[in-house]
Amino acid sequence: MTQAKATTGFLDQVNWNSDGLVPAIAQDYKSGRVLMMAWMNRESLALTASEGYAVYWSRSRKNLWRKGETSGFLQKVREIRLDCDGDTVLLMVEQQGGIACHTGRSSCFYNLLQDGEWQVNQPVIQDPKAIYN
Amino acid sequence: MTQAKATTGFLDQVNWNSDGLVPAIAQDYKSGRVLMMAWMNRESLALTASEGYAVYWSRSRKNLWRKGETSGFLQKVREIRLDCDGDTVLLMVEQQGGIACHTGRSSCFYNLLQDGEWQVNQPVIQDPKAIYN
Repeated sequence: MTQAKATTGFLDQVNWNSDGLVPAIAQDYKSGRVLMMAWMNRESLALTASEGYAVYWSRSRKNLWRKGETSGFLQKVREIRLDCDGDTVLLMVEQQGGIACHTGRSSCFYNLLQDGEWQVNQPVIQDPKAIYN
Repeated sequence: MTQAKATTGFLDQVNWNSDGLVPAIAQDYKSGRVLMMAWMNRESLALTASEGYAVYWSRSRKNLWRKGETSGFLQKVREIRLDCDGDTVLLMVEQQGGIACHTGRSSCFYNLLQDGEWQVNQPVIQDPKAIYN
């Protein structure tokens, strides 16, 4: 019981929102690039910690989302961090395949505000059709 | 009118949540360190773009929050990015004073999960009492 408490107590210190979720930012451990932001519930954070690979909560599908389970582009977790008020998680990951975005780009943040417009400024590394077929 | 449309049209492409907000991640332009995550409404993103310094929306105080207005630790914005589904913003900033967190640390993500517990692993650079007095 002591051990169980020791391994899940960190979950109690997270300030889950009214839906039982927190935002989780994934950052590439080597390049420092911010890859994506997704959501986690208690179970997904517990699994991320125990399995060592990023597991999110899909708000649209309402189920656990093992990142890369379809594409193969898993996120191996090197560090799990929590912010000062406990309501945001930061994962330092090794992004397998170098592709985090479903569009086939390294990062989801490929839209850059330039001259008052969002402009795509990151290349597609692999055609999504090839990734998800 | 055309010019006004051109300078605010990017706001219409953001997928604001049901509260009219999006999460905004601030990342240090030089070090690559993720500094904090806060929220923006339409006005705060517009002001961030026009003023060139990070302006968030404080959900607790329910007002615009010019980051650093009390501490002096402004965030000069170098890039504003939007993710693939338009519901998360990433700011690349120059963090003035090198302190983003109200605890006097460089980043808010100073809690590292180690051996099943959140452990503080970033030093306080400046005593918050000295920052906010």
